[in-house]
Amino acid sequence: MPFKNLDQLPAYTTLQELAKSPVDLTCHGAMNRERIRSYICSNDSFDLLYATQRVDDDVLDTLQQLADESKVVDQLLAMKQGEVMNRIDGYDSENRQVLHTSCRDLFAGSPMAAEATSQAERELDKLKAFLADLDARLVNSEGKPFTDMVQVGIGGSDLGPRAVYHALSAYQTPGRRVHFISNVDPDDAVSVLAGLDLSRTLVNVVSKSGTTLETLTNEEFVRAAYVKAGLDPSLHFIAVTGEGSPMDSPKYLRSFYMFDYIGGRYSATSMVGGVMLGFALGYDSFVDILRGANIVDRAAEERDIRKNVPLLLALLGIWNHNLLGCETVAVLPYSQGLIRFAAHLQQCDMESNGKSITRQGKFLSYQSGPIVWGEPGTNGQHAFYQLIHQGTTIVPCEFIGFRKSQYDDDIMIHNTSSQEKLAANLLAQSLALATGQKSENPNRYFPGNRPNSILMADRLTPRTMGELLAIYETKIAFQGFIWNINSFDQEGVQLGKKLANQLLDHLSACHLDESYSGISSDPAGWTLLQAAGIIDN
Amino acid sequence: MPFKNLDQLPAYTTLQELAKSPVDLTCHGAMNRERIRSYICSNDSFDLLYATQRVDDDVLDTLQQLADESKVVDQLLAMKQGEVMNRIDGYDSENRQVLHTSCRDLFAGSPMAAEATSQAERELDKLKAFLADLDARLVNSEGKPFTDMVQVGIGGSDLGPRAVYHALSAYQTPGRRVHFISNVDPDDAVSVLAGLDLSRTLVNVVSKSGTTLETLTNEEFVRAAYVKAGLDPSLHFIAVTGEGSPMDSPKYLRSFYMFDYIGGRYSATSMVGGVMLGFALGYDSFVDILRGANIVDRAAEERDIRKNVPLLLALLGIWNHNLLGCETVAVLPYSQGLIRFAAHLQQCDMESNGKSITRQGKFLSYQSGPIVWGEPGTNGQHAFYQLIHQGTTIVPCEFIGFRKSQYDDDIMIHNTSSQEKLAANLLAQSLALATGQKSENPNRYFPGNRPNSILMADRLTPRTMGELLAIYETKIAFQGFIWNINSFDQEGVQLGKKLANQLLDHLSACHLDESYSGISSDPAGWTLLQAAGIIDN
Repeated sequence: MPFKNLDQLPAYTTLQELAKSPVDLTCHGAMNRERIRSYICSNDSFDLLYATQRVDDDVLDTLQQLADESKVVDQLLAMKQGEVMNRIDGYDSENRQVLHTSCRDLFAGSPMAAEATSQAERELDKLKAFLADLDARLVNSEGKPFTDMVQVGIGGSDLGPRAVYHALSAYQTPGRRVHFISNVDPDDAVSVLAGLDLSRTLVNVVSKSGTTLETLTNEEFVRAAYVKAGLDPSLHFIAVTGEGSPMDSPKYLRSFYMFDYIGGRYSATSMVGGVMLGFALGYDSFVDILRGANIVDRAAEERDIRKNVPLLLALLGIWNHNLLGCETVAVLPYSQGLIRFAAHLQQCDMESNGKSITRQGKFLSYQSGPIVWGEPGTNGQHAFYQLIHQGTTIVPCEFIGFRKSQYDDDIMIHNTSSQEKLAANLLAQSLALATGQKSENPNRYFPGNRPNSILMADRLTPRTMGELLAIYETKIAFQGFIWNINSFDQEGVQLGKKLANQLLDHLSACHLDESYSGISSDPAGWTLLQAAGIIDN
Repeated sequence: MPFKNLDQLPAYTTLQELAKSPVDLTCHGAMNRERIRSYICSNDSFDLLYATQRVDDDVLDTLQQLADESKVVDQLLAMKQGEVMNRIDGYDSENRQVLHTSCRDLFAGSPMAAEATSQAERELDKLKAFLADLDARLVNSEGKPFTDMVQVGIGGSDLGPRAVYHALSAYQTPGRRVHFISNVDPDDAVSVLAGLDLSRTLVNVVSKSGTTLETLTNEEFVRAAYVKAGLDPSLHFIAVTGEGSPMDSPKYLRSFYMFDYIGGRYSATSMVGGVMLGFALGYDSFVDILRGANIVDRAAEERDIRKNVPLLLALLGIWNHNLLGCETVAVLPYSQGLIRFAAHLQQCDMESNGKSITRQGKFLSYQSGPIVWGEPGTNGQHAFYQLIHQGTTIVPCEFIGFRKSQYDDDIMIHNTSSQEKLAANLLAQSLALATGQKSENPNRYFPGNRPNSILMADRLTPRTMGELLAIYETKIAFQGFIWNINSFDQEGVQLGKKLANQLLDHLSACHLDESYSGISSDPAGWTLLQAAGIIDN
């Protein structure tokens, strides 16, 4: 498939014209019943409400044209069928398939990438057996069941799984808890291990390559704690890694595989998330997550942008970012469970689309991925919303909300429940940003026209969490296709790694010299860089 | 003091010229020994390393001129002496003093705002007595000591205190833990209360106005849980509020005051942080936090920008934001303890400086506060660093690091400790961003010239945490002074609040109608807005 750059598409030129005078949402009557009703796009559990975006039918029709011209849906299909989408033509690159969708292609007829899905099924069967063992007979050396799991991993082996774990803690199996160690900062491991009963804890070490510095270091850290406590790590440690990696070893109690066609940041629905989520929530809940993700994967094949939530979200993002010139996007879930969802998206989106070259190795002449940030509402309202309402920078907002809370425990005060207060705040913020407010007092003037949308579902459950993961994964892939970039590699992390290793080699040599007293003896650290030959003279 | 706009200052014009050709950090030899040694600014525990910023002596001299012309240090002195800095000339505004610095002006001679400091001392004495009581004789109805505290608050009553609590958990009094409820989402309160022994838990309700929707709602939620458990809330609940507020009531076990001259987002060193931090860390540690903050408050009076860390940080920020055109700033602490520090700064910075009018009520003709975001390293390296190295948007980075870990527990692997690995990664990232890397493969090309700095101290302790809080509070105030905006109000949060209340009034009325089944009956929520009269037809 020949890929075109965004600015080679005829629709892009039309959009640039349209962007000179986008719809003014602050006009009286702009936010009317008809607009609100017709600017809703629904896929299964989620409604995308986008009347508060600065688009009209002309813009939407042209975005449809853009989607058609860039063949985004065909590219998605090619990806799901196993085409080698992770590559840069003519240059050394990862040259891999991109098949995270195969992990969940289990529910509707024959899978699109049969071999990958059968590998996923094999791992799922292993997981099911392992979880059944844990329920029935797999106990610690004292015959007691395991109550806790520590997931040791970083990046994709941490952020997505951790975000989902927090999101679904309401559905946790009673008596089971999960903890996470990711940072190479030794304080991270020390503080997580403090207070754990290691004898009843499983340690799930997750690294696709089996060579991640932080993860191997922390694994050793935790192993040392087990040995110190007189416990045998081989009865506690589980591995999730690539087949044949240095971590693919019989020293683990169990090993699960992930595959090189699944990128870390897209791996929450593989065993990277599965082992821990299965332990915490039970096997069936993990399958519900997969089911939700698969529903969205299929809905994303729809070519009509008004009927395809991830595609419409992607196009609205491009409208705000490339056409209206906004550098960032705030993801604002009105659900405390989604406290770490933005952190997951920071990886999933910015590591995918924070690129500067096309898939042909040419430098881009337009912006690629935005900066993604956010915190749950209503907390954010008392933090940074001042800037998004009245600052000099426009921040497109993607609200996420639910009609019902997860626990059926609420309180009526002044005749409304907390959940109603939460939802009312969400709707009010969306509208306030769009319509603004006139005032004689310039400090009480709200300019409005601040674009935003709401993704709303009934309740945050394993299934809707799976949908939400897939909505964003697919949105990100669609945007990468339109920008004509490779969303699936991460060469940008290599230089820092290389310099850090040079420094560590130097430090390691220093330690052989008895007079050396460590990095702390260097007030600024810079003499170290110099000694390591990293900086000049 | 007559305030000038940034673009009225002669130095600004010079800076605009200089910004056309900032120093190229990617040139061979640019990052040399002399530059690195001379571009370090030290105040007490912290060194600010800024050789990796795109500045040279000409730029620094002109930034000095900018600081002088805008009289930033004089404005800081006026603020600390109690001038009414929270106002907009000629318009209805809060009209308040800004005296958060008074809470910690306890350590050097006579305080600059004597009355405010004596009020702070009175509260400190009450806190000391309360904490001594807790150690000695204040127990629950069964005669057992209190082990847990739940802080109920939102915004400034949550983010700053919570960030500091996480940062200093290594120094916690054994057997004491703190939990936080902030969001009006009922799931927040339910999940925090689950598993707590309420009979041994104190509840610290924090709201300056005593009218914050979320906090009052959550207070009632928690009270109901106490009543249900057969416990008397008056033996467990503490209040931190303004004197005379609706929460200033004898129904609390203890009441502490905060004052209208302390903004929520600057209140971590008042009783808003003090009661909880005193409980968790002990009185002396809280005083150490105050001591650190006060050291910075005094160091910030230095007029030479090369000797004033918060002022230099403020000016480098303005250089990157207003002159080099970067919309955001990433705060990247290489310390897992600082996991919530960026969330605190999002409020402290963006609520302060996300403004569009001058202190004379005129619309700004330049950018005010940037978008602030970030996560701890090395985690972030495996998430969004791809974009900051190779994305199409330039993100100035403020690294924060420490030479030693908090716990004296580390592991040597390949001859280096985890703490050394952490520090090596920090230095490597800073340098990689600045110098970049040439490559034949465009996907392995790093453009460099990505401005950043490092704030480095020996160890994260109560005292250095106090310094860090004050460095950023003061940086933010300095930037607001230079932009000629009021950094101390937050009118931008009002419109959303107003619309939410209209909606809730409507919902409350609906509940009186028996046929109404709640917000969940409305698929999109929008008919509700319409029914509430918030949107047209």
